[in-house]
Amino acid sequence: MKVKVDGETKDYYTLWREGNVVKMIDQRKLPHVFEIAGFNDHRATAAAIKDMVCRGAGAVGCAAGYAMAQAALEASDEPLDGFNAYMEEAAETVRKTRPTAVNLFHAVERCLEAGGEGSVDERVENVLSEADRIAMDDLEASIRMGEVGAELLSDGCRVLTHCNAGALAFIDHGTALSPIRVAHRRGRNVFVWVDETRPRCQGSRLTAWEMMQEGIPYAIIVDNAAGHYMRRGDVDAVIVGADRVAANGDVANKIGTYEKAVVAKANGIPFYVAAPEMTFDLHTSTGDEIEIEERSTEEVTTMWGLGEDGEPTSVLIPAEGSSARNPAFDVTPAEYVTGFITEKGLIEPPYREKIAETFRK
Amino acid sequence: MKVKVDGETKDYYTLWREGNVVKMIDQRKLPHVFEIAGFNDHRATAAAIKDMVCRGAGAVGCAAGYAMAQAALEASDEPLDGFNAYMEEAAETVRKTRPTAVNLFHAVERCLEAGGEGSVDERVENVLSEADRIAMDDLEASIRMGEVGAELLSDGCRVLTHCNAGALAFIDHGTALSPIRVAHRRGRNVFVWVDETRPRCQGSRLTAWEMMQEGIPYAIIVDNAAGHYMRRGDVDAVIVGADRVAANGDVANKIGTYEKAVVAKANGIPFYVAAPEMTFDLHTSTGDEIEIEERSTEEVTTMWGLGEDGEPTSVLIPAEGSSARNPAFDVTPAEYVTGFITEKGLIEPPYREKIAETFRK
Repeated sequence: MKVKVDGETKDYYTLWREGNVVKMIDQRKLPHVFEIAGFNDHRATAAAIKDMVCRGAGAVGCAAGYAMAQAALEASDEPLDGFNAYMEEAAETVRKTRPTAVNLFHAVERCLEAGGEGSVDERVENVLSEADRIAMDDLEASIRMGEVGAELLSDGCRVLTHCNAGALAFIDHGTALSPIRVAHRRGRNVFVWVDETRPRCQGSRLTAWEMMQEGIPYAIIVDNAAGHYMRRGDVDAVIVGADRVAANGDVANKIGTYEKAVVAKANGIPFYVAAPEMTFDLHTSTGDEIEIEERSTEEVTTMWGLGEDGEPTSVLIPAEGSSARNPAFDVTPAEYVTGFITEKGLIEPPYREKIAETFRK
Repeated sequence: MKVKVDGETKDYYTLWREGNVVKMIDQRKLPHVFEIAGFNDHRATAAAIKDMVCRGAGAVGCAAGYAMAQAALEASDEPLDGFNAYMEEAAETVRKTRPTAVNLFHAVERCLEAGGEGSVDERVENVLSEADRIAMDDLEASIRMGEVGAELLSDGCRVLTHCNAGALAFIDHGTALSPIRVAHRRGRNVFVWVDETRPRCQGSRLTAWEMMQEGIPYAIIVDNAAGHYMRRGDVDAVIVGADRVAANGDVANKIGTYEKAVVAKANGIPFYVAAPEMTFDLHTSTGDEIEIEERSTEEVTTMWGLGEDGEPTSVLIPAEGSSARNPAFDVTPAEYVTGFITEKGLIEPPYREKIAETFRK
């Protein structure tokens, strides 16, 4: 993705591996500070996933793959038994970081499987290759979703998006934002309504920042205003990403997605979910089986940003000691989804059949 | 309302008049600072309404009435022509402060009418009485709405509310929160889901603060989480206030109300609007005729709260120079409203007929 750093425009991936170090754009500091953080072993990378240095389904999956690559390097001098035990333990550490995004579990499985045959040296090599392949698959899927989704966006189209399913949520390009990027590059006028996406404001902090970097017209709105613009006819389509899609098409995504989907349907506005194969979880039959992560209530009661002195800081919003709840995701039933934008094309209902058909090995 | 100040519990109205001075709890500083602000003439009071020292349909109406009372006192030494001209000009100043809340316009009209006959001295007296009557009507209507609405809340009831239609939005008690207060005082277990209500967070700052003061169990959630809890069966009823109700039952209220109403309906949850007669605007046929105030985008891009040093301050959320939009209200079509909780009882569909019947003079 394009990033203006010190007046110069450079090209960055969200995260990458340099030898045994995993590097990430530190998304907790965006948009006020652009900083690359490095993590020297798989435990540090797992902690970074948990602490949301990177976030977003794809990025979390790739980071999990790289953490497994680090683990393989760390155990490369072990005998076979020791290597296997180390990898199993690392897998458990990585799995425990975030419960909702299925990409993470897929990535761990792919790396374990890749490291399951041959000598220790061969296993290490195979895990490293698989981690790289996860990142490259992610990149390629993002590009392809952009092409598939751009077909849905005509000139003058006004798209609402929730959270950040952009370049920063993947290795580059993103899912929900990739079609917008492609349509914009093809010269179509596209306008983006950016839900701020409380509590962590990935919309106003990350999506708006990405749109600014690319020169795509947008406006940040509070999450409450999305319905108002839908009802007034100012929204032509909604595109969001997903953290997990069940076999029946139910979608787990950032809290608030469900509300947007219901209101879009009430207003006859198409509601698309952009997600790569990695995000589809055919072992989960319906959305009811998806565990919803509940995060710290501090995310609700405080807001981080640039203070009046120009330094990042936090403010407390309600009275001290206020009680709060903070579910990080919600489930949108498949009936609200107009179509899935995937690297294999647009998937339309009936979802259980079409999803199985599309992703059958 | 009960307010704990310096360890002592005192009873306050949201605003009141002392001679020619209008006093208000400064709601811009709540919940971090409890402060009473005084305004010495009608222009200062009008500015306070515009700057949201007080807010909420009822409070704004009462403040408008008191501003007219101040104007009458200011012009009491004028000849009749001068008095009338002064009152007309004051009315215009007050009307320009906030375009959406109809209570404000009603209050101005009531005071102009009250000051329309007799000598200047008599007119002044009549305006003062009318301004007091507006406040007392508001108070009485709030109490009565509490009794009417409490009938709808059974033991164990979990109520979602949006924004603050509490004591602070009126002279005391409130509209949406009044039934909750009454049910709680009658010993029923009531739990309140408090939407934080971006951008100004009247939910987390004011509604949660009121619940804390009264000892009513509650949890603040981001606006995005309301749908999640509705879908999971954790919400038994939604009660909101209104800034204006059209003759057909369309409701203008704080931005985000429309989304809650649509999602409540999709989940079979009753959606009540608590509003006194003053909020019904029989001259507005449908919600489409209601002007929606668009406020400063700074409300979207910044957040005010208690800084890390314990002093109130603001932080900038997105990147500097981000573009944003900020509609302050939305319109909820009457079809989403299960019933109106009013001081004259519960109004149910068909609304155009029933509203006209209820409020026919």
